Amino acid sequence: VFIVVSTKYSAVGSSPPRSTRHTPIQTAAASTRTDPPGRPAATMEEELHALLRDLDALKQLPDPASIDRMRDRVVKMMGPSGAAAAATRSKIKDMSAEVVDSNPYSRLMALQRMGIVDNYERIRDYSVAIVGVGGVGSVAAEMLTRCGIGRLLLYDYDTVELANMNRLFFRPDQVGMTKTDAAVQTLSEINPDVVLESYSLNITTVKGFETFLGSLKARSSNGRSTGVDLVLSCVDNYEARMVVNQACNELRQTWMESGVSEDAVSGHIQLLVPGETACFACAPPLVVASGVDERTLKRDGVCAASLPTTMGVVAGLLVQNSLKYLLKFGQVSPYLVIASIELL
Amino acid sequence: VFIVVSTKYSAVGSSPPRSTRHTPIQTAAASTRTDPPGRPAATMEEELHALLRDLDALKQLPDPASIDRMRDRVVKMMGPSGAAAAATRSKIKDMSAEVVDSNPYSRLMALQRMGIVDNYERIRDYSVAIVGVGGVGSVAAEMLTRCGIGRLLLYDYDTVELANMNRLFFRPDQVGMTKTDAAVQTLSEINPDVVLESYSLNITTVKGFETFLGSLKARSSNGRSTGVDLVLSCVDNYEARMVVNQACNELRQTWMESGVSEDAVSGHIQLLVPGETACFACAPPLVVASGVDERTLKRDGVCAASLPTTMGVVAGLLVQNSLKYLLKFGQVSPYLVIASIELL
Repeated sequence: VFIVVSTKYSAVGSSPPRSTRHTPIQTAAASTRTDPPGRPAATMEEELHALLRDLDALKQLPDPASIDRMRDRVVKMMGPSGAAAAATRSKIKDMSAEVVDSNPYSRLMALQRMGIVDNYERIRDYSVAIVGVGGVGSVAAEMLTRCGIGRLLLYDYDTVELANMNRLFFRPDQVGMTKTDAAVQTLSEINPDVVLESYSLNITTVKGFETFLGSLKARSSNGRSTGVDLVLSCVDNYEARMVVNQACNELRQTWMESGVSEDAVSGHIQLLVPGETACFACAPPLVVASGVDERTLKRDGVCAASLPTTMGVVAGLLVQNSLKYLLKFGQVSPYLVIASIELL
Repeated sequence: VFIVVSTKYSAVGSSPPRSTRHTPIQTAAASTRTDPPGRPAATMEEELHALLRDLDALKQLPDPASIDRMRDRVVKMMGPSGAAAAATRSKIKDMSAEVVDSNPYSRLMALQRMGIVDNYERIRDYSVAIVGVGGVGSVAAEMLTRCGIGRLLLYDYDTVELANMNRLFFRPDQVGMTKTDAAVQTLSEINPDVVLESYSLNITTVKGFETFLGSLKARSSNGRSTGVDLVLSCVDNYEARMVVNQACNELRQTWMESGVSEDAVSGHIQLLVPGETACFACAPPLVVASGVDERTLKRDGVCAASLPTTMGVVAGLLVQNSLKYLLKFGQVSPYLVIASIELL
């Protein structure tokens, strides 16, 4: 049903490099946008802080008990840390297989009883780096988060725009946030057990590359050259793919590449094991092999098509392959292309 | 790469029928849960309403201007309709192909320029009913919403639990809400252009079936027996699948069936056209054909495994097939089974 085709890849999205930024994570609650889309509006946090100031001013007046009650309500809305965070669930120390509605891991631990995975809880020991938090990377990050991965490192230099809303994951109220911050906001609400690291940087710049390499090497132990178990490339241009390839070759780090075609209906995943498989520079897609400069593919006022369906399928296949690789079950796929225009 | 296998399907989730309910849609902002997970907590809406009552009481005191300012703030937080909706973006009258960051439809309209779809904007004329808003249905609903479908009808009788958090879509702060209400909350924030209809009911009950049938027939015109263009079955048990089959046979309504195996690593989609293809009662999966009562498959304390990957892939294939059917491009797949344990 799935057939292999040669695909053209999008160069869209490769905006001019920006320098490394460390933006504080915004509030988890919804912003109260009344401005036109695209312009940042007062956040829920700002509103609530203003409300608190007004209430403090009102303290000069009688009935302090009532006012204290209001203060308590507002503080409760704003969450324990003072940020207007969506109160979600407390952290869970050990993954349990108990079948109760309140156990977020029951359906995952059931993979053991079903004979698919030997030791599911081992997933907590693993760290995965996701380069590119767009239509594929954001969904892959959400899947790994919901699966209870130990640690996720997220890299992107872009910000959320309304033009991203045709793919899964980002919400209109996150427009203007960096993609990594918006992702951390959403993912930490979904599963507070996952350690999230957010890198808003462009890995193709000298400084960005250094930070990228350093973050992969951090926490290395037992003679391993990196502190991560897998790198997932979810970027939308070759330059970035070649940089991931370079970093992983230097560090002898296994990684998986993914991509979706410009016409939105095809995609691929590819496993790369330095020293075992051909590296990405030696086994690139056809369009690169034919020596076309991808920058010539990008034209003003023209954007590539994209669909949440293809992006979701590629993310699903990528993370399925990652789970098989990390948890050692089934057969890890070395290369897979989907072409959905004919029969899916 | 994809191979066809016979799969066993989950009977889990077929809780005792509940009567039809019409719960008001809860607040879009985060609930302020301080209670243990699994117990409903005061919602943001309730908190804000209580705050308003206190403020009204304070009105008896001096400085009404300051209090009015507070009221305005709270009302602004609560959104235009009085519900604490996350203000997102305003509705968009016509889909534009303009390539600007603020256009949520640019990447979809690009499907026309890429030669994939003749007239993408036609998607706004279509209505799709999704039966079952679980691991597959909720993601299918989000994909169609982000694609800008005209109208979505959602059916489910269940509530959100932490045990659902291993699949995409629902958030921990939605625990305790009906799945249809939680879905409407999330989807209306993502794309206010989509008309959403929420039916919290069990279609396998007499009353639920009547409401289900009535809602499909509503808005019928031009000699058509229903007001919807496609029904997607995303339920987790045969009884419900047979009810969808019965309704669609009665109404001569084209539908697509979907499912994921109990061991979480296989799934299928199937196209059913009354009067053309065999109906679901004549072409059921192997386990039904062999006459096993699915209720015997369900054992206390045992839950089926599920993965966001397989669910996401099945939802993606289902909606891709739906888009091809509705927008008339490519080849609509009559049947597709994925088995990911071997090579994805």
